[in-house]
Amino acid sequence: MAAPTYYTLPAKCQADFCLIPVGTTSPSISTYISQVELLATQSGLKCSTHDHGTAIEGSWTEVMNVIGQAHALIHDAGVQRIYSDVRIGTRTDK
Amino acid sequence: MAAPTYYTLPAKCQADFCLIPVGTTSPSISTYISQVELLATQSGLKCSTHDHGTAIEGSWTEVMNVIGQAHALIHDAGVQRIYSDVRIGTRTDK
Amino acid sequence: MAAPTYYTLPAKCQADFCLIPVGTTSPSISTYISQVELLATQSGLKCSTHDHGTAIEGSWTEVMNVIGQAHALIHDAGVQRIYSDVRIGTRTDK
Amino acid sequence: MAAPTYYTLPAKCQADFCLIPVGTTSPSISTYISQVELLATQSGLKCSTHDHGTAIEGSWTEVMNVIGQAHALIHDAGVQRIYSDVRIGTRTDK
Repeated sequence: MAAPTYYTLPAKCQADFCLIPVGTTSPSISTYISQVELLATQSGLKCSTHDHGTAIEGSWTEVMNVIGQAHALIHDAGVQRIYSDVRIGTRTDK
Repeated sequence: MAAPTYYTLPAKCQADFCLIPVGTTSPSISTYISQVELLATQSGLKCSTHDHGTAIEGSWTEVMNVIGQAHALIHDAGVQRIYSDVRIGTRTDK
Repeated sequence: MAAPTYYTLPAKCQADFCLIPVGTTSPSISTYISQVELLATQSGLKCSTHDHGTAIEGSWTEVMNVIGQAHALIHDAGVQRIYSDVRIGTRTDK
Repeated sequence: MAAPTYYTLPAKCQADFCLIPVGTTSPSISTYISQVELLATQSGLKCSTHDHGTAIEGSWTEVMNVIGQAHALIHDAGVQRIYSDVRIGTRTDK
């Protein structure tokens, strides 16, 4: 197989993620979600939260790093399994 | 604001993404999806495809880079707007 | 195979959906999304919109019917293929 | 407000859902997922499972009823909170 062409990651993306800690004993997960929201806010990226997730904008790498760090943070808080659903949009027309 | 603590990105994650090119004129998007699947395969990461997406495993950064490159590839093919839905799981218990 | 037990559909759910018309020629889909938001509002269910979707609450059947009607509405507007990502939560503890 | 027009729900859709029980004590949720897969199989609809979900085809109502019953089944099994991510596609061109 020929070496694959490397494509430059998008300079800008708009994402919306919903993180679910699994195996938390309690069905209430708001303490974890607050930590995730704080992390997103402290990232310095443009972000906002709503009932079903956190919207965040930045370069592909910046945004994905924040979501990955959110997983790391919640693992650090003692949660062994985490699931996220992420909606991501990129555009070249604006 | 104090400098935020930096969390190490997960060394392993299991993702499943469904990429939708937007504004393609035709409702048939299989040509684009084939290119995405080829890119995933050529990434060297463990991956497989199914009717509603592509499953891919690796470190957080590796996996997110492949999905981001898939966006870049499809933009390169002339599509101005792309949407992806990504399901991502991380675990520390196995 | 024995006849499966039938489970009563949840009396309440909280959903958040993001509808993407496919094959629209233009990458701009805001005209369609406005129609979807109007339909959700007119449903009489509690709903709100944000940058990445529409949140809607009601019984399982009510909510899924609104999302299904949103697909029907956009097909009616001439779009041949539609994709939605739906996040749905149900709880029995509150 | 004028009475909204009612749109007929799609006669056919292709869905893929990933159900996550929340507050399960253990991070292992495979017992629950097996029950969901069995329910989907017993529904009589065309379905298949993969690492990140269950694909299912049928009318809009049939498919959404199966997913709603999966929530009811898992609540019945003692789980108080459930989250699902659903990808749904409808087409009028084939």
